[in-house]
Amino acid sequence: MNHSISPFAPSTYPDMPEVAGIRLATAEAGIKYQGRDDVLLIDLCEGTQIAGVFTQSKCASAPVDWCKEKLSGGLVRGMLINSGNANAFTGMKGQSAVDASARLTADVLSCSADEVFLASTGVIGEPLNPGKFDGVLQSLAKNLHADGWKQAANAIMTTDTYPKMATRHLELDGYPVTLNGIVKGSGMIAPDMATMLGFLFTDAPISAPILQALLARLVGGSFNAITVDSDTSTSDTVLLCATGAAAKAGLAPISELADPRVQVFADVLGDLMRDLAQQIVKDGEGARKFVEVAVKGAQDDHSAKKIALSIANSPLVKTAIAGEDANWGRVVMAIGKAGEPADRDRIAIWFGDVRVATQGERDPDYSEEAASRVMQKDEVSLTVDLGIGPGLSTVWTCDLTKEYVAINGDYRS
Amino acid sequence: MNHSISPFAPSTYPDMPEVAGIRLATAEAGIKYQGRDDVLLIDLCEGTQIAGVFTQSKCASAPVDWCKEKLSGGLVRGMLINSGNANAFTGMKGQSAVDASARLTADVLSCSADEVFLASTGVIGEPLNPGKFDGVLQSLAKNLHADGWKQAANAIMTTDTYPKMATRHLELDGYPVTLNGIVKGSGMIAPDMATMLGFLFTDAPISAPILQALLARLVGGSFNAITVDSDTSTSDTVLLCATGAAAKAGLAPISELADPRVQVFADVLGDLMRDLAQQIVKDGEGARKFVEVAVKGAQDDHSAKKIALSIANSPLVKTAIAGEDANWGRVVMAIGKAGEPADRDRIAIWFGDVRVATQGERDPDYSEEAASRVMQKDEVSLTVDLGIGPGLSTVWTCDLTKEYVAINGDYRS
Repeated sequence: MNHSISPFAPSTYPDMPEVAGIRLATAEAGIKYQGRDDVLLIDLCEGTQIAGVFTQSKCASAPVDWCKEKLSGGLVRGMLINSGNANAFTGMKGQSAVDASARLTADVLSCSADEVFLASTGVIGEPLNPGKFDGVLQSLAKNLHADGWKQAANAIMTTDTYPKMATRHLELDGYPVTLNGIVKGSGMIAPDMATMLGFLFTDAPISAPILQALLARLVGGSFNAITVDSDTSTSDTVLLCATGAAAKAGLAPISELADPRVQVFADVLGDLMRDLAQQIVKDGEGARKFVEVAVKGAQDDHSAKKIALSIANSPLVKTAIAGEDANWGRVVMAIGKAGEPADRDRIAIWFGDVRVATQGERDPDYSEEAASRVMQKDEVSLTVDLGIGPGLSTVWTCDLTKEYVAINGDYRS
Repeated sequence: MNHSISPFAPSTYPDMPEVAGIRLATAEAGIKYQGRDDVLLIDLCEGTQIAGVFTQSKCASAPVDWCKEKLSGGLVRGMLINSGNANAFTGMKGQSAVDASARLTADVLSCSADEVFLASTGVIGEPLNPGKFDGVLQSLAKNLHADGWKQAANAIMTTDTYPKMATRHLELDGYPVTLNGIVKGSGMIAPDMATMLGFLFTDAPISAPILQALLARLVGGSFNAITVDSDTSTSDTVLLCATGAAAKAGLAPISELADPRVQVFADVLGDLMRDLAQQIVKDGEGARKFVEVAVKGAQDDHSAKKIALSIANSPLVKTAIAGEDANWGRVVMAIGKAGEPADRDRIAIWFGDVRVATQGERDPDYSEEAASRVMQKDEVSLTVDLGIGPGLSTVWTCDLTKEYVAINGDYRS
């Protein structure tokens, strides 16, 4: 299982600043991996507000069930995140493991278990032994510190080929505010599946209902606008926490959605989330190309997104891109199968800035050579104009390569 | 583009009998391929009844549009089918090509163009020159003969690795009746897509409305229960024709759905269609394993089919099967993402006859060795019991191999 590092792996990582009110620690609990940290403890100051979005799977993991239940409180004091075992499809044992893990974490952080959030990623169907946490929680609690974001991003990786993190700085009423995020994406855990986990933190004083509204809105253009292989994990979790520590400097709390500062914050948060989401796709299993699919002229935005995802999920489109083939016939196919309103004779398609089809036919001025140059790049954009309405959507994906099949099919060899 | 022949290619082909009232001829029109027949003309006796089902694509090909329009007449005298060019996404030119092709065919068969049905498979977006047919239609009409079904199945192939045909014999009121079918499946036509075409013929005297009702019902358990890669062609077409020639021997015509003979015929037709549908999956691009996915215990049959297709279309499930990995965690994932009612803690999963998961957990008696033996076979069955209702569905697919990526991505190399 030695798969090559994504060509999009960054040569340098962002310098992640502290977020007032947040301390982190990682440790090696030996859940599955050897010789690397696999558990992350996060301590959040009293009063930290939390929002979350989760997998739509009908077979969600035990930690997802736990988080959904605890979210109604809107408060968080601790997070325990592990890689190596997803604690999914583990029945009653999974539920007990979650209960025990939250209790153990609450003990070392001196908070209520109801304010502990959990996330697990890795093997499905293997019972998760909470005793593994018991052995390291004391030392984790002692080692909590305000930096160490890169170690945190590393500890939650499965077969991601690089750690994923991003930071943003903004000012609200002239007061500095920080936004940090770490995510892990679609790597393969033999013998199981990919999982998306994302954790976002700010010191801005924003109440849980507003965080929830922002997260629910912005996830559509970021984490819900990416696809590697159309498969949905049992464990997908994105949590957004606001410690409110910036209020100490004098920043007035934000507790109304109509507050004009909400939009300022939302713009930066949306940018951070898109950045992190794109990092996941760029490290998609076997990815060699990063693909932006933009659909315009659809009946409405919802219809545009269905068509964009139909294109981005099509194995035939994705293998064509792997083969550097400007195969617009397959794009037409993917538009057609989406089942959304489309008029064959109005469709236009571009690869990069080369229009390959217009008015339901091959573009008469289409240059195969120019299109080939576009397809040879690492990043490929594909634009479709349906010509029937104002609907817009952009999604991101990667190509489908033999490496994807190798990663997911060859582990026994 | 020299891809290996499917391991499921038959060593012998069925001896296809004549169907009274049907004559066929093939020729090399040089549409795309060299050195092989690429056009098939079928002559059907006067009064032949026809039914059809087509792609759900919103970007259907010009011949699909033509057939849908002509189907209301319920009568057919001629069919012209070509490989090498799908006449899809060809705008007004595509429509003119269809008009001209039907007229030319009607001329040599001395019938109305409204009784000519057309199907094309191959490259998308290239104008189809009807002049290619003009050059061969006279000789085709002269060469029409009642056998030659295998040549017909060959002429409609794209990159299918073997011709697909099947035949059934039955008796209605003691009179012999024949059912023949030929299909072509998912082969790759550089630079475009796979297409499914199917043509079914009987000499039974059955009226068009009954044929249509049977075809619409039976396609759900056959051609609409197979998937290679979840991509839907612009050209999918299945036509069912009844010449009625068996009436000459004395068989009374069937024109009521309540006629008890309808069910006798439907059982045999359904069996033929399932046989042909499975042949397509066994020749799926890069297929090395034939996979049956059976879902039971779902809320209803519709829900069971959605879950079965979610499993059969999952790249993670399909690569696991290619890797001979009894990866039931991915099956749970695919159940979950289907969005249909499921109770995690009631699900049971079998590979072959090995139960690998039960009551939402790994089966405690699960033998990795026994499961491995199942996965090493050419044909793998996967059974899911959701345990919440009476819903049943079975679908068929193939594995996802590097060969699939090579066929669809490497054509430029």
